[in-house]
Amino acid sequence: MAKFYGIGTGPGDSSLLTLKAVETLGGLDILYTPEAEKDGGSLALSIVKPHLKEGLEIKYRHFPMSFNKDEKMIKWQAVAAEITEDVREGRNVGFITLGDPMLYSTYVYIMELLVQQIEVITIPGISSFSNIASSQNFPLVMDKEPLIIIPCTADEEIIDTALQTYNCMVLMKVYKNFEQIVKKIEKYGLIDYALLVSQSSLEGEKVYTDLRAIDLKEKISYFSTILINKNNNPSMR
Amino acid sequence: MAKFYGIGTGPGDSSLLTLKAVETLGGLDILYTPEAEKDGGSLALSIVKPHLKEGLEIKYRHFPMSFNKDEKMIKWQAVAAEITEDVREGRNVGFITLGDPMLYSTYVYIMELLVQQIEVITIPGISSFSNIASSQNFPLVMDKEPLIIIPCTADEEIIDTALQTYNCMVLMKVYKNFEQIVKKIEKYGLIDYALLVSQSSLEGEKVYTDLRAIDLKEKISYFSTILINKNNNPSMR
Repeated sequence: MAKFYGIGTGPGDSSLLTLKAVETLGGLDILYTPEAEKDGGSLALSIVKPHLKEGLEIKYRHFPMSFNKDEKMIKWQAVAAEITEDVREGRNVGFITLGDPMLYSTYVYIMELLVQQIEVITIPGISSFSNIASSQNFPLVMDKEPLIIIPCTADEEIIDTALQTYNCMVLMKVYKNFEQIVKKIEKYGLIDYALLVSQSSLEGEKVYTDLRAIDLKEKISYFSTILINKNNNPSMR
Repeated sequence: MAKFYGIGTGPGDSSLLTLKAVETLGGLDILYTPEAEKDGGSLALSIVKPHLKEGLEIKYRHFPMSFNKDEKMIKWQAVAAEITEDVREGRNVGFITLGDPMLYSTYVYIMELLVQQIEVITIPGISSFSNIASSQNFPLVMDKEPLIIIPCTADEEIIDTALQTYNCMVLMKVYKNFEQIVKKIEKYGLIDYALLVSQSSLEGEKVYTDLRAIDLKEKISYFSTILINKNNNPSMR
């Protein structure tokens, strides 16, 4: 019986795909892939490309990034209806999403619409923060400590509370209010324990082991993440 | 030049290894693997076994689980010295660790000892909570929300604060004070949004979509994790 597969592609490097993702990609009849707003290219597609079978049908679908939730929902519903039809006609359908599908991915909207209709198999992926931590030999968290992951689009109060409460943190989406975030990290005495990586595992990857050395007026990549671990021995770095 | 590789094996299913992990495993000359205290078996080894080259030397090393930090450190230092020697003699050495190496893994202790001596490459892995979320189609976190990951060996106050503050949570190591944890989840009105999985991707995997149905007096597996997402539409489940 045909199924729908939501596949996490990892952060960018094709070798970070799991064997399960690769095997699943190779058995698909149709692949849905998000088409980016501006350049029409798809990073997720470039990651999986080496593993697609010949003759696979690729359906590029445009998903608006607008803040209008109704507008987005209409689009998602249309794609979900199309996918349901494809699967009911006996085709194995895939949908690719960057990083891990269950962490901050719009894949969840399509999954929620499909899960009552057809069989949905979701395959996890390496998240960008996990790849940054490993590639920098930067321990995220150990023993009894909590780890908090915060998108910097969150309310300022939530960010402030976390910075004051926890020793181990992942700050995502730091590009929007980057200067303000770095100043907060400094204010709360965390700057010596912080690491910034842009474009992890992608072309143009940049690693900043000293946040003080960054020109805060410069525009920073959309794919930028800050890791903080107050228990890290700075001599390790 | 020979290197040291720390390799995340993911939660248990061999197909959740990354291509990078598989390729690295195939090029190793020596593999260090932790030998469990009680049964001498190694779950991490069983995960990677299909991908090891013939003639690979496997060094089983015993790591005490005692709470005596000095005792553990002496053991880690001895293994680190042995690994350093192997790498300096030109051998590519691997070390395997369950899940993701930078999340609550004792691998970090060996990494910290090696990183100043030899080249250390760490390869990320799928964490058990990420696999549980995907395999249950359970979104961990979306949009502007923080996600907090807490080992239930943490102080009670830390657990209580998190349960009262955040909508999206991963509770790890719930086996020790399981009854108390489930009662807290109920007390803070989160039980309808919680999911428990034991032995994720392993033999004997158990999924509990209703925590109220669990006999709290029963002993629960060491590999048990609770996911909570207050924004989850319960009708999805």
